[in-house]
Amino acid sequence: MSDILRLKLLIAYDGRPFRGWQSQATKDAVQDHVEAAFANTIGEKVSVQGSGRTDAGVHALAQIAHADVPTARLEVTAWQGALNNFLPPEIRVLRVTRAAPDFHARFSARGKIYTYRIWNSQYLHPLEIGRVWHMPSALDLDILRAGLVLLEGQHDFAGFAANRAPGYAAEDTVRTIQQITLSRRGELLTLRFEGNGFLYKMVRLLTGTLVRCAQGRAELTFIHELLAEKGARKTSFAAPAEGLYLTRVLY
Amino acid sequence: MSDILRLKLLIAYDGRPFRGWQSQATKDAVQDHVEAAFANTIGEKVSVQGSGRTDAGVHALAQIAHADVPTARLEVTAWQGALNNFLPPEIRVLRVTRAAPDFHARFSARGKIYTYRIWNSQYLHPLEIGRVWHMPSALDLDILRAGLVLLEGQHDFAGFAANRAPGYAAEDTVRTIQQITLSRRGELLTLRFEGNGFLYKMVRLLTGTLVRCAQGRAELTFIHELLAEKGARKTSFAAPAEGLYLTRVLY
Repeated sequence: MSDILRLKLLIAYDGRPFRGWQSQATKDAVQDHVEAAFANTIGEKVSVQGSGRTDAGVHALAQIAHADVPTARLEVTAWQGALNNFLPPEIRVLRVTRAAPDFHARFSARGKIYTYRIWNSQYLHPLEIGRVWHMPSALDLDILRAGLVLLEGQHDFAGFAANRAPGYAAEDTVRTIQQITLSRRGELLTLRFEGNGFLYKMVRLLTGTLVRCAQGRAELTFIHELLAEKGARKTSFAAPAEGLYLTRVLY
Repeated sequence: MSDILRLKLLIAYDGRPFRGWQSQATKDAVQDHVEAAFANTIGEKVSVQGSGRTDAGVHALAQIAHADVPTARLEVTAWQGALNNFLPPEIRVLRVTRAAPDFHARFSARGKIYTYRIWNSQYLHPLEIGRVWHMPSALDLDILRAGLVLLEGQHDFAGFAANRAPGYAAEDTVRTIQQITLSRRGELLTLRFEGNGFLYKMVRLLTGTLVRCAQGRAELTFIHELLAEKGARKTSFAAPAEGLYLTRVLY
């Protein structure tokens, strides 16, 4: 197998033009574009494995992926330029390095950091269109902070997971959130979630539910109940995709 | 004249969808949109005067304008919402206040601050598309800094002004730049120009010429000569509009 080299890719994208990370029949997902760039570079199919899905409209500052390529075809240092040459400008490979043969973008990950940006002011700044959740109503940040604390730690987050399509394998829904931080700079609120993993739409459901509480439209006991009932009850308050950024994958 | 009220507007816009600030026959300038929003609000023509032009594609974090409206029509506090209601989302009125009757957005200004953002790295970050000048080649920042120093102070900047259309009144081309600062954060270079006024395309010509020197494609003596020759020689190195931001108007 010495003629196969595993590459580790650091990829950033603006989520708006794409149907999420995961390959689609319509070929307009980020993964499709990256695989097409590999195929255009060396004239053969290369499968690209990401650290996980991001939904349509979700941005990535640092998605990680791996791909196996024939060693002889290109120097490691030449891949970044070759791939970017074939990618749309809204997707950029920021770094390509040689990975260990057993490195796996998804299974080797020990955690992830997501950030969620909220523009909390009556009017959305024109340079923030598509990059934040515009939330004109007042938010009680003390309640928001109290909610964050409830969510930190190890919990069964089934109440904060979107339903998968029927037939999708049931998965373990216990996750650990090491830390959630809230920072404010002017009208911009930023939530930063660091965890060992996140369920499908979990960050958007956590954010939407926290904001619902901070608006005074739900009680913090709702968060307690969602955690305690382990999926028997689910939240439906999902924050929109455009405020969410995959910020770092931890290995 | 007690039935006329002068309003001062603070306006931000993403420059990309518009043909600059200044009203166009095609009605797709920012000023056209703001005037249309006034007309839609009170059903009569209101003329809006900005602090100065910005070119097509140039962004504004804080353009200032004034407009005279009939006092009786709307409370001052109601104007912001009314105007934003009729404006495209890429233009937002961030503040409306009552101005003194002799306040003039252009003639009362004692200076302006522009910032110019340069992405100095081989590949442009996808979330910076349309917001920076992408400059992949290496820049000598010591030369850039030395160039800034030459430009500070009072000079005849005719060598850094684009030619106006024939028939445009000749203007005094002496301006004072109080300060130009350069800051770097990762791949992003930001130039900040504070001056008592800037000629047509002057900030883009200053930036383009400084960058040309920092690339090693022109000597700093070129800047000396452009200043000394007071317009007999002109630079043609204009940085693109998309990196430029009108950041503050000083009164």
